[in-house]
Amino acid sequence: MRVHWEAETATDDRGLAYGDGCFETLRLTPGGAPLWPWHRARLLGGAARLGIPLAEAVLDEALTQALARCHGSAVLKLILTRGSGGRGYAAPQAVAPRLLASLHPLPARPDSDYHEGIVTGLCQQRLATAPALAGLKHLNRLEQVLARQEVQRAGWAEGLMLDEHGRPVEFTSMNLFARFGDQLWTPPLAQAGVAGVARAVIIEQLAPAAGLFISQQLRPLSQLRQADEVFACNSVAGILPVRTLALWRWPVGPVTLALQARLADLFA
Amino acid sequence: MRVHWEAETATDDRGLAYGDGCFETLRLTPGGAPLWPWHRARLLGGAARLGIPLAEAVLDEALTQALARCHGSAVLKLILTRGSGGRGYAAPQAVAPRLLASLHPLPARPDSDYHEGIVTGLCQQRLATAPALAGLKHLNRLEQVLARQEVQRAGWAEGLMLDEHGRPVEFTSMNLFARFGDQLWTPPLAQAGVAGVARAVIIEQLAPAAGLFISQQLRPLSQLRQADEVFACNSVAGILPVRTLALWRWPVGPVTLALQARLADLFA
Repeated sequence: MRVHWEAETATDDRGLAYGDGCFETLRLTPGGAPLWPWHRARLLGGAARLGIPLAEAVLDEALTQALARCHGSAVLKLILTRGSGGRGYAAPQAVAPRLLASLHPLPARPDSDYHEGIVTGLCQQRLATAPALAGLKHLNRLEQVLARQEVQRAGWAEGLMLDEHGRPVEFTSMNLFARFGDQLWTPPLAQAGVAGVARAVIIEQLAPAAGLFISQQLRPLSQLRQADEVFACNSVAGILPVRTLALWRWPVGPVTLALQARLADLFA
Repeated sequence: MRVHWEAETATDDRGLAYGDGCFETLRLTPGGAPLWPWHRARLLGGAARLGIPLAEAVLDEALTQALARCHGSAVLKLILTRGSGGRGYAAPQAVAPRLLASLHPLPARPDSDYHEGIVTGLCQQRLATAPALAGLKHLNRLEQVLARQEVQRAGWAEGLMLDEHGRPVEFTSMNLFARFGDQLWTPPLAQAGVAGVARAVIIEQLAPAAGLFISQQLRPLSQLRQADEVFACNSVAGILPVRTLALWRWPVGPVTLALQARLADLFA
């Protein structure tokens, strides 16, 4: 197995045929790839859960090659697929997974998104309950594609997605956090959703360092209205205050701005 | 938009990135493509539901080209994707969908599968409730891939998949039918599952012609035990009697064999 930087891949690749694989999009800085350990762990974990063999050395080689090709800020996208072939859904006896790598410019985002917050809405498209796939950043993302169409039509910056029982899970491409007093809440992702790297950094490092208690329990949508502050995050954009969700409004809060600064420090 | 027969496609194709598309696998015979009208309608319907523009003329051109390349029995696979690019889950303003075509040998299957029936088991992997995607033959098929791993490990011919409430939906790559007296039952696919072409042919043509009433209502798994006969079907393999599901057994029934013959006639 080696890292593929080509712009073409096989049409019998199982990533294309069935979405049989997982991916990472991570931010490179002039200094390197600050969140690499988290992305690396997530991709290895996803590969293990899907049963796709992935050598750690190949993954590290992908980062080395990416950093050799890029000396500024960029987004590195890695797609791991189970490779070509097999009869129908069954994979071949000996699989030859592919690791596809590509570099992209860091998406532009107005400064006001960080200081004044973003306008969000509620997506009609729900996230299905799928415990075997929940948390993974796998290649089956039609729910997000359809939800994102709603976001574009409505002109929101992001759209909140609910589970089939109407409980908040995440935004289409960002995780959801809300502060209730000294408690920082984010939805559990055991049944649906993508376990984001920025979310993991906040839960494991930034929130404890800020003296916040983390709560990950299912909450009805209505409770979100009572939050002191709400934010969205991912490892490319960082942390964005959520100013509105449909008719509900929240202030841009001190905890959001503090965590936003701490996460940005990692990319400085 | 044209038909692509190349063995390579772009690594930024949204079919690979997100499973953003749908597909058909259909059986070609020396006489043509007997079930083409159903496959054609399903692919056009799937494209419409996902919002992917697909001209009927391009689809018909794909079949014409396939028949010019193949003069015996074969399987034609068509993959429609939303094409390249876009920022994240959002598609570009002007999409350029791709229609990828490939020909494959008809899979070999022992005659005994048709006369004596197949051995099946119950998959642990469930099908998620996803009404916006249910029925579509889309490219998000990780549930089937994981279920098929169970089938391979257990050595079954097929595996039955249940919905999240434990009700039968379909086999990993075949639809499920069961006869109860003069009633032919198949699970509804409004919440999960793939609306197979062979299933549609049976419901719309073969069952009415055989004087059978069709029932499509949710039933608990336990009711299946009371069935007079059970079969599985898809448009490549045709109709296969189901001999066993775990510890339950059914005879190879007269209705199964009659419908099997009528469907086979279409491919003669």
